[in-house]
Amino acid sequence: MVFKKITLIGTSPESFDAAADDAIDRAEDTLQNIQWVEVDELGVELATAEDREYQAEVTVAFELEE
Amino acid sequence: MVFKKITLIGTSPESFDAAADDAIDRAEDTLQNIQWVEVDELGVELATAEDREYQAEVTVAFELEE
Amino acid sequence: MVFKKITLIGTSPESFDAAADDAIDRAEDTLQNIQWVEVDELGVELATAEDREYQAEVTVAFELEE
Amino acid sequence: MVFKKITLIGTSPESFDAAADDAIDRAEDTLQNIQWVEVDELGVELATAEDREYQAEVTVAFELEE
Amino acid sequence: MVFKKITLIGTSPESFDAAADDAIDRAEDTLQNIQWVEVDELGVELATAEDREYQAEVTVAFELEE
Amino acid sequence: MVFKKITLIGTSPESFDAAADDAIDRAEDTLQNIQWVEVDELGVELATAEDREYQAEVTVAFELEE
Amino acid sequence: MVFKKITLIGTSPESFDAAADDAIDRAEDTLQNIQWVEVDELGVELATAEDREYQAEVTVAFELEE
Amino acid sequence: MVFKKITLIGTSPESFDAAADDAIDRAEDTLQNIQWVEVDELGVELATAEDREYQAEVTVAFELEE
Amino acid sequence: MVFKKITLIGTSPESFDAAADDAIDRAEDTLQNIQWVEVDELGVELATAEDREYQAEVTVAFELEE
Amino acid sequence: MVFKKITLIGTSPESFDAAADDAIDRAEDTLQNIQWVEVDELGVELATAEDREYQAEVTVAFELEE
Amino acid sequence: MVFKKITLIGTSPESFDAAADDAIDRAEDTLQNIQWVEVDELGVELATAEDREYQAEVTVAFELEE
Amino acid sequence: MVFKKITLIGTSPESFDAAADDAIDRAEDTLQNIQWVEVDELGVELATAEDREYQAEVTVAFELEE
Repeated sequence: MVFKKITLIGTSPESFDAAADDAIDRAEDTLQNIQWVEVDELGVELATAEDREYQAEVTVAFELEE
Repeated sequence: MVFKKITLIGTSPESFDAAADDAIDRAEDTLQNIQWVEVDELGVELATAEDREYQAEVTVAFELEE
Repeated sequence: MVFKKITLIGTSPESFDAAADDAIDRAEDTLQNIQWVEVDELGVELATAEDREYQAEVTVAFELEE
Repeated sequence: MVFKKITLIGTSPESFDAAADDAIDRAEDTLQNIQWVEVDELGVELATAEDREYQAEVTVAFELEE
Repeated sequence: MVFKKITLIGTSPESFDAAADDAIDRAEDTLQNIQWVEVDELGVELATAEDREYQAEVTVAFELEE
Repeated sequence: MVFKKITLIGTSPESFDAAADDAIDRAEDTLQNIQWVEVDELGVELATAEDREYQAEVTVAFELEE
Repeated sequence: MVFKKITLIGTSPESFDAAADDAIDRAEDTLQNIQWVEVDELGVELATAEDREYQAEVTVAFELEE
Repeated sequence: MVFKKITLIGTSPESFDAAADDAIDRAEDTLQNIQWVEVDELGVELATAEDREYQAEVTVAFELEE
Repeated sequence: MVFKKITLIGTSPESFDAAADDAIDRAEDTLQNIQWVEVDELGVELATAEDREYQAEVTVAFELEE
Repeated sequence: MVFKKITLIGTSPESFDAAADDAIDRAEDTLQNIQWVEVDELGVELATAEDREYQAEVTVAFELEE
Repeated sequence: MVFKKITLIGTSPESFDAAADDAIDRAEDTLQNIQWVEVDELGVELATAEDREYQAEVTVAFELEE
Repeated sequence: MVFKKITLIGTSPESFDAAADDAIDRAEDTLQNIQWVEVDELGVELATAEDREYQAEVTVAFELEE
């Protein structure tokens, strides 16, 4: 059993929770067997966003198929 | 005056805030004089949870009785 | 183009999101051209607060005027 | 569901694996529902040991009873 | 010459060495020109494993083809 | 031979050395076989103290009885 | 909007700047919508290089297509 | 309630405690409502000092006026 | 003698050296008695720049006037 | 009593334990009064090795003679 | 002009300041042109000391002769 | 095969690349079999330099003779 980790940054105009969910939603579109997610960093983008854009960088661990 | 620190991980199906509150609630059941709490890590468990389980690892500082 | 960074700690009786917003609101009162915000640490103050006080230490990056 | 973490240092005259096992064995003597273990540091003591003493500092996470 | 790094977690019921080898074996199945491997973290899973499952998170560096 | 580590914060109106000693004194009240102490952080509290209160967060390692 | 991060190591016989550019050039060959790059580590390889080989490990963040 | 943090380095020919106090003294000259101080780094300067100059880099947190 | 530290991010279309110099130039416009500069992070911005914009985050230490 | 620390990297075709022992063996050839050893990093070299070469970077602390 | 850094651990039955001085004293016995000293870690040894032995791990930077 | 690591700081009035090269040049004067170099920190000295002095702290790994 081998797991792989990838790093995504989700965004949301609402909250850090929604930003993390955004990244997990995307991961679930293309990956199977996601096991757990670690939050690496939280931030807020203002310069290029209409309003405040909450961001959550997460590392997603999933099991590789044998 | 001496403080002690312990580390707990709270969980919630709702949000990171609720997961941190879960750990603090538990700490308050058995500890008196809790002073402050530091969030060490945030994560999401998917493998062993029905849905997404938000987790918050927190360090709780409380004053020891003399 | 040069950016400067300062560090603020926002507080809220509600949530970590609101605590971060509190710090960003304050930054926007006195600074122009805020570009992005990094969350350094999350915590909860209990000793000197009525109830739980959520805290978010954030670093705010803004562009200096030329 | 709340987890607690404690930190132990196991020792062995044989190997780092055995030192980690030593700490986990001890944890299992007094704790139920151990979930996972993180290795924090590995080292070797020579000054106070007969020969080389392998050491593994581990953090043990276990589920608190409700 | 450009290298890429990916992060895998190998597992073994035997030892940390075998867990690292497990991840490297898997990497060699799909990647060519692996150059070196860094051990990021060691751990032991107990909750979802029959017995103790040793885990080694490793970062694998390999040369990209031109 | 297994060691355990706990984290205490000592305080003193005098100095960082005295704050560390304060924590070690307290540890020696309840623990036997203390082996060594690591200083994790030094700080000064002003808001809730009469004057400056020096603080030393220390991790205390002691040998568990068999 | 979701971003992904990957880690590359560029090399150059000339300078750290050129090594970072080497990695970014390669990233641009296969990725669209690269947003920013973080320099993780700088180093110099001598053993397997003719002369000094400057190396820059960079993390490249790009926007995933929806 | 919003706090701000600034970083100062105090110096003393006597001790680390005095160096930290030096920085706090200076902070108190210009800032009100200082809440707490974190010691970031300790060092000793010899090259440009007559004798040993003890240095303490501290981060000072103070409450901003509303 | 007390020093203060502030954090700036300089930018340049040319190189990391020039980006660091850009931040130091700006610091010298408004600060006297700059003593030393620490490079905290290097990066490259692509999304909002015409071409590659090299960035250097630096911490500038200067002596406060008495 | 003053200790000095040096950093060595031992190698082995067998295991991380043997790689650490390799470095300690070498240290014992030239140093007296070695007190303890800290493992800084574990890795595996593949590019320049016949097969997998396990590596352990260790810091060796020894007492200086008076 | 090139500097070299070495790491020493000084000890004292009195205080952390005296432990750091102990290491610097020893460095000055054998090294010329010491420029500055960074404190890496503070600790207290109890197991092998008569009473508490304060320890300061310091990194000493000195200029190499040309 | 055992490697040793030492830490040097090179300086240059020109650039960070030249500062790193300065340290490596010096290492090559006295050491054989240098394998690789890691850049630990970059900085700029202004107080004791005529103009800006770029500094690169590097760790040099070399193979010990058997």
